[in-house]
Amino acid sequence: MKYCVGVDIGGTTVKLGIFQTDGTILDKWEILTRTENAGVEILPDIAKSIEEKRVEQNIETEDILGIGVGVPAPVDSFGVVKNTANLGWGYKEVKRELEEITGYVVAVGNDANMAALGEMWLGSGHGQKNMVMVTLGTGVGGGVIIDGRPLVGKNGAGGEIGHILANRQERDKCGCGKKGCLEQYASASGIARLARIRLARNNDWSLLRDKQKITAKEVFDALKEGDKVAEDIVEEFGAYLGYALADVAAIVDPAVIVIGGGVSKAGPIILQYIKKYFLEKAFFANEGTEFIIAVLGNDAGICGAAKMILG
Amino acid sequence: MKYCVGVDIGGTTVKLGIFQTDGTILDKWEILTRTENAGVEILPDIAKSIEEKRVEQNIETEDILGIGVGVPAPVDSFGVVKNTANLGWGYKEVKRELEEITGYVVAVGNDANMAALGEMWLGSGHGQKNMVMVTLGTGVGGGVIIDGRPLVGKNGAGGEIGHILANRQERDKCGCGKKGCLEQYASASGIARLARIRLARNNDWSLLRDKQKITAKEVFDALKEGDKVAEDIVEEFGAYLGYALADVAAIVDPAVIVIGGGVSKAGPIILQYIKKYFLEKAFFANEGTEFIIAVLGNDAGICGAAKMILG
Repeated sequence: MKYCVGVDIGGTTVKLGIFQTDGTILDKWEILTRTENAGVEILPDIAKSIEEKRVEQNIETEDILGIGVGVPAPVDSFGVVKNTANLGWGYKEVKRELEEITGYVVAVGNDANMAALGEMWLGSGHGQKNMVMVTLGTGVGGGVIIDGRPLVGKNGAGGEIGHILANRQERDKCGCGKKGCLEQYASASGIARLARIRLARNNDWSLLRDKQKITAKEVFDALKEGDKVAEDIVEEFGAYLGYALADVAAIVDPAVIVIGGGVSKAGPIILQYIKKYFLEKAFFANEGTEFIIAVLGNDAGICGAAKMILG
Repeated sequence: MKYCVGVDIGGTTVKLGIFQTDGTILDKWEILTRTENAGVEILPDIAKSIEEKRVEQNIETEDILGIGVGVPAPVDSFGVVKNTANLGWGYKEVKRELEEITGYVVAVGNDANMAALGEMWLGSGHGQKNMVMVTLGTGVGGGVIIDGRPLVGKNGAGGEIGHILANRQERDKCGCGKKGCLEQYASASGIARLARIRLARNNDWSLLRDKQKITAKEVFDALKEGDKVAEDIVEEFGAYLGYALADVAAIVDPAVIVIGGGVSKAGPIILQYIKKYFLEKAFFANEGTEFIIAVLGNDAGICGAAKMILG
């Protein structure tokens, strides 16, 4: 039996998993991400933790095919990171460094791309070769899989779906500094913002008016209760996201679009609002694109990272 | 010396070229596209023409590595076409059929993807591995090259940049049946339409008012004469195209965007209008994307098709 290791580095914890090559997960665990001192301990900590687990599981060194790593930053095709927002790393040759520490083959990718690859390998996109995954969380992340491989791009910034232009008239700035990005309407905070704007516009009765602080979850809960204002908000969310995904489909021509992240926990009900607007605008060749809710949750990253080793 | 053949099938003529593997073109020529009888003669005509040229050039059969073919329709990764607008073909297994007729290895792709690949191999994108080409002609075509290979997609419809949503408020339909596609503003006919709409809006003096029928070329000619109305029209064109290409860049992260097609004959002056709006909206990682005018003209298709054989 051969094995591969998947690592998903986050700003607070590093998630790790050991997989058989058939996708069976043998074990998964977490360690803390030590971001102090420019994150100098992160890779040695990962190496040490994998070695401990290897011994515990009685796996021979030569049976480990390699380590795949997902990083919350653009990663170029040489496994190099230019900068990170929350790991402490500036320029870092992640692939080379971890290979030198561990002696294993290492492959490195962007975490959103790894999540997409994970859903393709073991999740909702199983069996597909052309897939897009959108992660609707605090922000909007994206991963594009072409012919079974993540779209990396020149700067490792492929699949930045959250920053396509959804509204030319927007006056507020996105976190990235530009205006009108999809992330301003389709992330959890974006949905809450759409709700605040709509509630301020008139005095229509809504369950949402009782809330101290409106969250995306409350908007979807109110929708399920039949709240009309909540439905208008979700329609608006669906239009921004559906139109944007029609653009993504025109460029990428995926078989499947997987919707993940915290917002996707509202369930399949959100798909009808996205598909309605997607179909209104999609190029005819893309009208058969399937929409699916992600199933792997927080494990998607380690699954995709491990898959990187299997090619 | 080894050779590869590039074929670019159009609705009126088929363009052909024989290339050395280093990109040197040995000969190029054209034959008529016989679309009658459901286009049944097109592939045999191509085979016959290549055989005649091979004999004329004194090339041994075994020195021809294969034939690459560009088709004006979506082509899937098996070299199969589902339908064509102007060749007479319905479902056609182009790769299999031409391989059976000729005995050579055949690779088939969409013509816009082939043009992009051609510019990457021998033209303005030389040396790049991640590139987008936009062809601004009667319509707006697009080709995306990822890691040196065309983005084909599930249905062979990858890179349909002309059909991304550029204007949510549009009331007129695009040729594809949907509303607000980039093609309605950035193609030659789209630019002429922007001109007609703007000229009808008020009575401002313009060189364009003397024209019987306004074309994109006349708009750019007037721009070069300092015509203010023409400049407003080109600004509008630049905004639609620049914003749309910022979206493409966010998804694909290209090193270079190549602008080709009839509209690009206006020259580098158009790039400043596109880049201005591109930079206003581009994700920060994409701000260094280069813009270049295509250089291969009508030869791009045969160059890219030939390159398909070299991998």
